[in-house]
Amino acid sequence: MTSFPQALGLAQQQVEEFLSAHFAALAATGVSSPRLVEAMSYAVLNGGKRLRPLLVFAGAGLFGVPEAAALRVAAALECVHCYSLVHDDLPAMDDDDLRRGKPTTHRAFDEATAILAGDGLLSEAFAILADPATSPAPAHRIALVAALARASGASGMVGGQMLDLAAEGRFAAGSTALSEAEIRHLQGLKTGALIGFACQAGCLLAPASTPAEREALASFGAGFGLAFQLKDDLLDVEGDTALVGKALRKDEAAGKATLVGVLGVAPARAALARVTAEAGEALGVFGGRAELLRELLAYNATRDA
Amino acid sequence: MTSFPQALGLAQQQVEEFLSAHFAALAATGVSSPRLVEAMSYAVLNGGKRLRPLLVFAGAGLFGVPEAAALRVAAALECVHCYSLVHDDLPAMDDDDLRRGKPTTHRAFDEATAILAGDGLLSEAFAILADPATSPAPAHRIALVAALARASGASGMVGGQMLDLAAEGRFAAGSTALSEAEIRHLQGLKTGALIGFACQAGCLLAPASTPAEREALASFGAGFGLAFQLKDDLLDVEGDTALVGKALRKDEAAGKATLVGVLGVAPARAALARVTAEAGEALGVFGGRAELLRELLAYNATRDA
Repeated sequence: MTSFPQALGLAQQQVEEFLSAHFAALAATGVSSPRLVEAMSYAVLNGGKRLRPLLVFAGAGLFGVPEAAALRVAAALECVHCYSLVHDDLPAMDDDDLRRGKPTTHRAFDEATAILAGDGLLSEAFAILADPATSPAPAHRIALVAALARASGASGMVGGQMLDLAAEGRFAAGSTALSEAEIRHLQGLKTGALIGFACQAGCLLAPASTPAEREALASFGAGFGLAFQLKDDLLDVEGDTALVGKALRKDEAAGKATLVGVLGVAPARAALARVTAEAGEALGVFGGRAELLRELLAYNATRDA
Repeated sequence: MTSFPQALGLAQQQVEEFLSAHFAALAATGVSSPRLVEAMSYAVLNGGKRLRPLLVFAGAGLFGVPEAAALRVAAALECVHCYSLVHDDLPAMDDDDLRRGKPTTHRAFDEATAILAGDGLLSEAFAILADPATSPAPAHRIALVAALARASGASGMVGGQMLDLAAEGRFAAGSTALSEAEIRHLQGLKTGALIGFACQAGCLLAPASTPAEREALASFGAGFGLAFQLKDDLLDVEGDTALVGKALRKDEAAGKATLVGVLGVAPARAALARVTAEAGEALGVFGGRAELLRELLAYNATRDA
């Protein structure tokens, strides 16, 4: 019986070994720019928690998807997540110097390199999914590509980041106060879409999944995404900078639209508890098989980083 | 019998109608940021020559691929090409204010919007390819995704752009003089990879293509890519700013690595003629069926913009 910390540690290790070997192989071809591959590797091997990969493993584990397949999906997803961090940290975006206590990619390299490293990571994610090693079935691979393209693009993560910048008042005089529903929509795109993909990727590799199971994972993914964002926003207000590894109390200063800002801290804490409970209930169809997803929910609600 | 200018005009019209309708539909869902979709649309509806789409149509036409399928591939490819222009024009990259006589996307909007519009276009390209409307066969769609991911990423276009910036001396004191072979490698990635994809996409949608036909198109694509870049570099030296629609004589000032710079103008012209002839010879296997590809070659060698 693997403990949750062991499972998370193992997910981190597997994803980092895969990505490390992947970029070493890319560099070894001698085709690309060494500086570019170095920056891409720096951007993904960033000490991340790898919660999204563990969500992929946990979801795929429900359906007996081969671990090697889930690992490739998890690695592709981390490429997308990490590219978005690189671009979000740029001076023209959030202008951050540190990410998990390390210089951001444009600080460690330069802006042009960071832009291109992000671009390269997004293409690489699709290359990893499209490779037959991910699944022998073209139909599975193209379903993953379609879902990741949707989750990462204008109707997903990138759309959410744009709504976030707009809410800060970047494109009009003064910041615009968003309603709770508008913030939920924004966050559902910005962080929820990739988390939803992580939860549902297992189904896409498992033709035997039932509609009820797919619906349950979609519902769980939406709930987990909201709980994850609530926790992140609470950590920004209440967290310990040394543990979180980035500058805190930034949301209010930047005029960021957060549920904590709209609801207040105590109601946001209550919402986190409620959303966490609801997401757990969505897993009922899996009976005792979804223990790892339940542990991920509990972990999120209590994490300090 | 369609004349070449008619074929090019029709390709432009079809691609622009598709992309215009595509982004209108995306906006109509109300899911994404209106500003983001507007910037994505602005970036792709940029008055481009649409040579890459016509290459897709011409290659697909050799194998009887349905026009609607070729059109989706052409549109996806233009999303990638146009995203690369948006990012290349950014202040941290080539810092261009004009593109075909119109303000570049970061000038018409702002830098953050331009970065995200580029990111969104890259995801959208894969979403378009992954849609069953592109081909009922998942194996065809995933082959296109794999090829486009490779052509657009670190071992393709993005890698070439990074090598180009390095050759300008961005990351070391003084610019580094590249050899002819190094410049060919750089340009083969930066512009050749997407052009190669355009030429070969038809094969990927046509299981009946023979190995000899696939090799012929790969060889033609490599030659066309080199001829295209030679012509672009010659236009930078010899062209008419009003016709070309962007600032010229920039390559030398920026320390850009070009074959014209290494070989001189007259030898570069001779190389263009030779490469053009060789690319035409590669089409021999198709007999008289490849007339449109031959016309594209001739058009490239004589274009003034």
